[in-house]
Amino acid sequence: MTIAYKKLHDTFARLSRFGHLSAIAGWDAAAMMPPEGGQARSEALAELSVLTHQILTAKQVGEWLEQAGGEQLNDVEQANLREMRRHYQQAALLPESLVQAKSLAGARCEQAWRIQRKSNDWEGFADNLKEVVKLSRQEAQLRSEAAGISRYDALLDLYEPGMTSQKLDVLFGDLKTWLPDLLQTVVEKQKSETRIAPQGPFDIEKQRQLGLKVMERLGFNFGAGRLDVSAHPFCGGVPQDVRITTRYNEDEFLSAMMGVIHETGHARYEQNLPKEWLGQPVSNARSMGVHESQSLLFEMQLGCSEPFLKSVYPLVIEQFGHRKGLDESNFMKLNQRVQPGFIRVDADELSYPAHVILRYEIEKALMEGDVEVDDIPALWNSKMKEYLGINTVGNYRDGCMQDIHWTDGGFGYFPTYTLGAMYAAQLFQTANKAIPTLQDDIVRGDLTALFQWLQQNIWQHGSRFSTDQLIKNATGETLNPAFFRTHLENRYL
Amino acid sequence: MTIAYKKLHDTFARLSRFGHLSAIAGWDAAAMMPPEGGQARSEALAELSVLTHQILTAKQVGEWLEQAGGEQLNDVEQANLREMRRHYQQAALLPESLVQAKSLAGARCEQAWRIQRKSNDWEGFADNLKEVVKLSRQEAQLRSEAAGISRYDALLDLYEPGMTSQKLDVLFGDLKTWLPDLLQTVVEKQKSETRIAPQGPFDIEKQRQLGLKVMERLGFNFGAGRLDVSAHPFCGGVPQDVRITTRYNEDEFLSAMMGVIHETGHARYEQNLPKEWLGQPVSNARSMGVHESQSLLFEMQLGCSEPFLKSVYPLVIEQFGHRKGLDESNFMKLNQRVQPGFIRVDADELSYPAHVILRYEIEKALMEGDVEVDDIPALWNSKMKEYLGINTVGNYRDGCMQDIHWTDGGFGYFPTYTLGAMYAAQLFQTANKAIPTLQDDIVRGDLTALFQWLQQNIWQHGSRFSTDQLIKNATGETLNPAFFRTHLENRYL
Repeated sequence: MTIAYKKLHDTFARLSRFGHLSAIAGWDAAAMMPPEGGQARSEALAELSVLTHQILTAKQVGEWLEQAGGEQLNDVEQANLREMRRHYQQAALLPESLVQAKSLAGARCEQAWRIQRKSNDWEGFADNLKEVVKLSRQEAQLRSEAAGISRYDALLDLYEPGMTSQKLDVLFGDLKTWLPDLLQTVVEKQKSETRIAPQGPFDIEKQRQLGLKVMERLGFNFGAGRLDVSAHPFCGGVPQDVRITTRYNEDEFLSAMMGVIHETGHARYEQNLPKEWLGQPVSNARSMGVHESQSLLFEMQLGCSEPFLKSVYPLVIEQFGHRKGLDESNFMKLNQRVQPGFIRVDADELSYPAHVILRYEIEKALMEGDVEVDDIPALWNSKMKEYLGINTVGNYRDGCMQDIHWTDGGFGYFPTYTLGAMYAAQLFQTANKAIPTLQDDIVRGDLTALFQWLQQNIWQHGSRFSTDQLIKNATGETLNPAFFRTHLENRYL
Repeated sequence: MTIAYKKLHDTFARLSRFGHLSAIAGWDAAAMMPPEGGQARSEALAELSVLTHQILTAKQVGEWLEQAGGEQLNDVEQANLREMRRHYQQAALLPESLVQAKSLAGARCEQAWRIQRKSNDWEGFADNLKEVVKLSRQEAQLRSEAAGISRYDALLDLYEPGMTSQKLDVLFGDLKTWLPDLLQTVVEKQKSETRIAPQGPFDIEKQRQLGLKVMERLGFNFGAGRLDVSAHPFCGGVPQDVRITTRYNEDEFLSAMMGVIHETGHARYEQNLPKEWLGQPVSNARSMGVHESQSLLFEMQLGCSEPFLKSVYPLVIEQFGHRKGLDESNFMKLNQRVQPGFIRVDADELSYPAHVILRYEIEKALMEGDVEVDDIPALWNSKMKEYLGINTVGNYRDGCMQDIHWTDGGFGYFPTYTLGAMYAAQLFQTANKAIPTLQDDIVRGDLTALFQWLQQNIWQHGSRFSTDQLIKNATGETLNPAFFRTHLENRYL
């Protein structure tokens, strides 16, 4: 390795080791920690985050980055240097005072939100949110000036490098031309079908066993990961030790099962990131959108498909036995039900984009200064009416207060959900073309070829290529929403 | 706070936050982590330990310690400064090269030992151990020169500040005058008694429920701690979030139950350390011996006493029902069985001191340079013969290779087990005098007064006083082995 690059390499390896501890302690806080451990844990994690921020933004790092730019680097090293530079610039850009103020305001808003949401207290929430928005706008302004892009785009770039609101307007604009009609058609069509809620209760331990068996089927490496329980399912840990969580409800097993499938998609991406570069930024998952493409490929493209449902049906029966609502045809229909509702996380794949687009439109306008916090409820209501025909007037709890993202200033994140859904459709259709026997393989429970394809085209590349390049290499073209449309029409019409 | 003291205060608070992450990641490695996570975890923990060593031994810290010595400090601050100085000196004394060499040699020896022990491979183990002994002697030499005490005493002081081999020779010498006879008498006496092994299997989940109920009875705060499973039971985590572990065996439930009681003793000490000083060295548990006194007070003084066994007997029956070997009188006898054997961790409280004394004598001679690694098996065998009448020739696995302590250079630790047993007897007898109704309280399952006494006399003081002072304040005199003798004679004769 060249001199400056070697120093950067070692610095980022060190940061990654501290990141390991932060990831495990964060997982523990959500999945294991008893309540009284919370304050000391927050303080410990904050101390570590101050440390890593100092290491990352040290003056030397900036100098090494400049020097390394003139050194002889191979392809991977160059990609790594590009990612290092991105991390450095993102972190070094903000004055420490703003980072701290944002972190404090975010923590205060999020904590209060947990109670305010339950009591539908928009006024109280809005007070805190205004401070968060103010600081996020300052952040966006600084990032915008440095990158020469719009304020919202500068935030979006944190989660989905290379994505812009101009591109999103085109992509989401396309969806808006055909998705509302399709949704209405499918809702009408499904009105004539009967679906029976399976007869509970569903023993939690049996649900867990089912989850583990499905994870095994999906190739999860239990030598390098675990399944546990948390209030909000997530995929955490580190590539060498991936921790996924779910939550169980005795009355209903499908959401836990589908949640496990979703998180297993995230997990397999993490578990199969390039081993030889682990600890370096180039080994990281490409973007939040690409990450979500893996979870949604597992959950929606594969998991809710008839061939896959056929193949896991015996596992379901093995745990719960034959009972009312668990015949195979009803089991299929339950997993493809379309029903617009208030809540994003409960939405089917036809309504989901509407939830995302309305949030995108509001948060973009918020960050660009075109609307204010006080405008949110009215905007929310009019868009929910327009996109999904749902009235949220006065119902903040199930309306604009339902998500955690904005409480700590995560503006720019929401679009990655629908980008992920579109990437997933494009990847899965390409994989199906490349593997002519895939549908039959899936029925037989043999997913080897699919995983090889994902490994070869997505997982092994980490952050080596830009998202556009990665998707183009894998599918022959950059993101094209036509694949998503084809998928939805094939499945639901 | 005064100027230099304030800087020390903040530095140690910072170290404690990093210590929090290390404790949780360490617990996770033992209780949760899948095998492939091990290497990355070790690297992450090593990185953190390099960092904290640098922070602790920074030149400034030494200067602040000197300055703070001349500042106006209150009692607690003075005690805190004393403990800070101890930590600093212990860490700053060793050259980084020796710390690293010892850590590497220890890790190599310990890892190989896990396999070598199984295959009874003394030769292979001895090779690695020689390197560990060599480096530990270097460490002992440096510590000895700095403190002006013997090499072994300098190591002992790491675990049991203020203790010396001169004092240990007196204490253990006393035990050696009466314990062998007592042991033989009790073994003879118990020969005529019948004990029936309870009829298994004992469902693991029911064992866990029993453990949780016993922990509840013992006042464990589940809002600030957990019970989990690990290969070797331990008490980890941080005072705000104490993690204890046990291991289960379907054939036998008593060792898991007694293990839980033991670790709960450690845990309650941790959970009740002085809240207002947490994060500062003065809030730490006083010593390993005092820590062990709490676990042994719970397990041996309280847990194996007839009043306590009577009070938990219904909890046992609640889980396992009446079955062969689970009548009350047999249940009592099982928990007071005396039977010398090969293995320290399985030893009853009458044989345990012999295991400790033989290790103490060997490790002291090793560190003082009076014997070499090659001498260990013969010494082990002759002492096991002499103290317990057991032949270990050729049986390294269940002889001098049974413990993990020496593999990574933990010389000086073993005496704290028997010191703990003696402190425990002294404390419990004093508590019984102070609380005349205690024996009846225990039968009724009411341990409030006992815990208040421990809180008042031990837990709340952290490291404020020296061990001698702490024990004297609590019991009116410094450590006196007569209490231990009284306890054993009362229980077993």
